[in-house]
Amino acid sequence: MNHTPTPTLAPYRRAAIIGGGVIGVSWAGLLLARGVEVVVNDPREDIEDLVRAGLDEIAPALADLGLPTGNLAAGLSFEADLATAVAGVDVVQENGPERLELKREIWRTVEDAAPAHALLATSTSSIPATAIAAALRRPERLVVGHPFNPPHLVPLVEVVPGEKTSEETVERARDFYTALGKKPQVLRKEMPGFVANRLQSAMFRECVYLVAQGVVTEQELDEIVTSSIGLRWAVAGPFRTFHLGGGPGGLPQFIEHLGRGMERDMWPALGRPSFDDATVATLTEQADDAFGGASVGDLAAERDRAQITLMRALRETPDDTATATDGARA
Amino acid sequence: MNHTPTPTLAPYRRAAIIGGGVIGVSWAGLLLARGVEVVVNDPREDIEDLVRAGLDEIAPALADLGLPTGNLAAGLSFEADLATAVAGVDVVQENGPERLELKREIWRTVEDAAPAHALLATSTSSIPATAIAAALRRPERLVVGHPFNPPHLVPLVEVVPGEKTSEETVERARDFYTALGKKPQVLRKEMPGFVANRLQSAMFRECVYLVAQGVVTEQELDEIVTSSIGLRWAVAGPFRTFHLGGGPGGLPQFIEHLGRGMERDMWPALGRPSFDDATVATLTEQADDAFGGASVGDLAAERDRAQITLMRALRETPDDTATATDGARA
Repeated sequence: MNHTPTPTLAPYRRAAIIGGGVIGVSWAGLLLARGVEVVVNDPREDIEDLVRAGLDEIAPALADLGLPTGNLAAGLSFEADLATAVAGVDVVQENGPERLELKREIWRTVEDAAPAHALLATSTSSIPATAIAAALRRPERLVVGHPFNPPHLVPLVEVVPGEKTSEETVERARDFYTALGKKPQVLRKEMPGFVANRLQSAMFRECVYLVAQGVVTEQELDEIVTSSIGLRWAVAGPFRTFHLGGGPGGLPQFIEHLGRGMERDMWPALGRPSFDDATVATLTEQADDAFGGASVGDLAAERDRAQITLMRALRETPDDTATATDGARA
Repeated sequence: MNHTPTPTLAPYRRAAIIGGGVIGVSWAGLLLARGVEVVVNDPREDIEDLVRAGLDEIAPALADLGLPTGNLAAGLSFEADLATAVAGVDVVQENGPERLELKREIWRTVEDAAPAHALLATSTSSIPATAIAAALRRPERLVVGHPFNPPHLVPLVEVVPGEKTSEETVERARDFYTALGKKPQVLRKEMPGFVANRLQSAMFRECVYLVAQGVVTEQELDEIVTSSIGLRWAVAGPFRTFHLGGGPGGLPQFIEHLGRGMERDMWPALGRPSFDDATVATLTEQADDAFGGASVGDLAAERDRAQITLMRALRETPDDTATATDGARA
């Protein structure tokens, strides 16, 4: 096992990024800022322009995170032939379309062409490693490394081993993402949507219901979240929160006093909305009211700045996490 | 209407806090720190000791929030007779047990004994104002002011009018909580659990499921949340997040490209766990592993400090919100 107490990027001189979309560009920017050479493989003719424009867009956030962005593109290259692209790399992070057959084809080529020591990870949010690796000679080498978008900013990476992924691969992936300044979390079981997207999806379902029912507008609901549960869950997750909300007896006391009532009265009453025409019309109209005054790009940049402010306060920016031993987070 | 652009606490010289439990003490501490006299009404014989001990416990957090706590108890008094307690107050915040008949009895007494100008609010998390006010001569005076626990720390107060609550009462409640440094949000419709608890409950259901299924432990799930959706939702709520995650087309584009897949594949697959013996045993054992090393009180104090660090970074502590015009939050 390669697991070390303080993982470094030393073993990762060169990375292949397969697929230069939003996720691929974000990974590329983060790797380049951390001094790793990046070769981008993407069949699109205008991929160089797209990636360079994307890097320009995320450079301010990388700089805000305390990473050097002076000459990001110095270590960047492009290679349209997949086998050539992955020859000589130390890690492959694949961000192709979410289609099983296409991913299998990509990974069969990578398996043959990449060095035997290369770490092989897919950013997929929906396809289990087991399904992709079924097409490989050495399924133990492939692991899911699913970032929470965008990877250069949000700390979480869900590391999801397939049935045949080796423990060594899992540990190497964990170390690699840790060295990149991310917060990898290894899941114990493959589950559609993994964890973060399932949780997000469960909550969003109720959000859509409450807006469709006219209880609140989108903007009002967002304000409720940022001023209560969002604020809470940024420093303590749901279990810790309810452990602390249960009195001196902690979570077991919470379950007895409030959890059983939640199961009986609240869970069956949760909404089952649908994106029917009326709901979509309401959601669209309110989104325009709430967010229509500025471009998505400008709003995203504003949100990212606030995000970094918060991460800095919690000592969770990459420059802090590299050295901090007394983070503010509970 | 009493609604003013910058509401102040000037009209609120004296408050009655009915019920001196955790919520009542938290309201009392916040009011006292903001210079409002507080009379606590609670039938328990040892209520004075309980409240004073509770105030000592939250004083450090109030001080961290930038509020004066030098002589909190100077404005504090106790009155076991409800009618006497509410005579001469400017606002009543009731935090009694969640039993409809008891609340009706309390509020009938308050309605007769409190001054005609007093703002009347109940902290209830589960009983609609309409149901309580049905017992009152002037139902237009009562409104729900449901804090997210603990009220002295978490900004949200859900202001939920009953069918007969007057607009004037709603506006006065909004102004009162704003002047207290809270972030009141007026709901447009009564709904069991209001909004924040419904959302929390929807997400927690999936949390329990994923732990019961062995996909992650409680601690791992908490870390996933704090390093992804919690961090996100502290600065931008779910609708804004998906508006920004949908590409240049915003939320409508998100719904078409990802929302419909979420409805089709994810929502029906969400878990339906139950607090059966096996699940409770798992949750209890993991809570002990994750949180058992320290007392609930110490962990809560640590969490509250992290919370205040985050609020200060976002300029959302009471001293900041009173003056800031350029908050960092998106």
